[in-house]
Amino acid sequence: MTRPVILVTNDDGMNAPGIAALVEVARDFGQVIVVAPNSPQSGQGHAITIESPLRLNKVDKFEGIDAYECNGTPADCVKLAKKVLRKDQHIDLCLSGINHGSNASINIIYSGTMSAAMEAAIEGINSIGFSLLDYNFDADFSTAQYVVRSMLEKAMVHGFHDKCKLLNVNIPKVSPGELKGIKVCRQADGYWKEEFKVGEDPRKQKYYWLSGEFVNRDSGDDTDMWALDNGFASVVPSQYDLTHYKSLLSYNFFEE
Amino acid sequence: MTRPVILVTNDDGMNAPGIAALVEVARDFGQVIVVAPNSPQSGQGHAITIESPLRLNKVDKFEGIDAYECNGTPADCVKLAKKVLRKDQHIDLCLSGINHGSNASINIIYSGTMSAAMEAAIEGINSIGFSLLDYNFDADFSTAQYVVRSMLEKAMVHGFHDKCKLLNVNIPKVSPGELKGIKVCRQADGYWKEEFKVGEDPRKQKYYWLSGEFVNRDSGDDTDMWALDNGFASVVPSQYDLTHYKSLLSYNFFEE
Repeated sequence: MTRPVILVTNDDGMNAPGIAALVEVARDFGQVIVVAPNSPQSGQGHAITIESPLRLNKVDKFEGIDAYECNGTPADCVKLAKKVLRKDQHIDLCLSGINHGSNASINIIYSGTMSAAMEAAIEGINSIGFSLLDYNFDADFSTAQYVVRSMLEKAMVHGFHDKCKLLNVNIPKVSPGELKGIKVCRQADGYWKEEFKVGEDPRKQKYYWLSGEFVNRDSGDDTDMWALDNGFASVVPSQYDLTHYKSLLSYNFFEE
Repeated sequence: MTRPVILVTNDDGMNAPGIAALVEVARDFGQVIVVAPNSPQSGQGHAITIESPLRLNKVDKFEGIDAYECNGTPADCVKLAKKVLRKDQHIDLCLSGINHGSNASINIIYSGTMSAAMEAAIEGINSIGFSLLDYNFDADFSTAQYVVRSMLEKAMVHGFHDKCKLLNVNIPKVSPGELKGIKVCRQADGYWKEEFKVGEDPRKQKYYWLSGEFVNRDSGDDTDMWALDNGFASVVPSQYDLTHYKSLLSYNFFEE
């Protein structure tokens, strides 16, 4: 029996501790191939590189594992893995992360980690993005690794839903002993309450620097934000069909 | 009575003919403010700029209209408009485009045009992204302008759906006389069948350049692709809640 082929990628770049933590678990479940950006890509959203050429360099980073750095975005990495490295041969699973920082709630739409996972899902590959609620470079990934392992064990038994191959997983910043469990939930309705820091550069030109705080405006106890706030890892089955079906008929007036 | 405040933005940049075509119609419906990137941003997805400062320059581009160029992404433009230029005062409507090229089907997730519109919708602003199925710089925008005008007239009467403030509008490359009408539809299930052009640069380094063709794998006659293929402009009410609700229960095994 051949081992499953598992593509690992991320948006924090090949040298982020999060991808090493993910590879360490993934290698117990199949033949791992790593394709990751050569520099951090946070906040890139679902960008793809069409205006310039992409480079792919083999790196000796994880013992016994084929790993490639790419000068593109996380979505580019998935495209290159599928078309160039795998030459359209089967990839059984795509794992993206472990991201340094949350991709819960609305953050999925800004997320390079999730854009890589989504790109794989569009290609028909079962796909999970993992994010830890800790921005620190030296974050403790042991709880996240426990969640990855637990989910891969279960996914191997139960498989993915036929119509939903994309999971957005976030892990709270707690020790393995403090983790309450894993919750399957919906995306909370939140937004970024932005502020711009206004300053003057050395040439006396005004600049605006984005900062902000996340606001959860969703009071439900069935959301990813609720799960994370209460010590659970959150799993949101996600899709790339953005149609708001419930309002289709309400907009019929445009057809008149 | 005060006139509605209409924010116009795009991802092709301030000098693209598409944004001029949009401003020309929008100004008949309210007080227009334009904030657009200073260079084309296509394929940027929902990127936001957090690692570097943003600049905002007033430009004299449209007579009697406040217009600002920004060095950021389309989503950045919306954030700057709301927080810096409008200082959180009301914006009644955000119009993004008119994009040179399709944002139908799955293209919404790669689209800067739609990321700007989505950013506005998250902020609670009624929002429409317009795209014309013609990549040419000197495309004929008369049919697109007809659609914009028709939709704004109707939206002024009927208003937006309370739970869905985001519309993805695509216009076929036909003359106004050939346009069959406007159809409200769902997002077609399509994908990009990519190829990478492999080459060697002047320093003999291998490169990969993304190209590809769009494949519609959706046979429904209620999709945006069907509408466009049959001479209609398509309107897809869209959302940023990516939860795949139908599969929530199927993934309960992760909780065990």
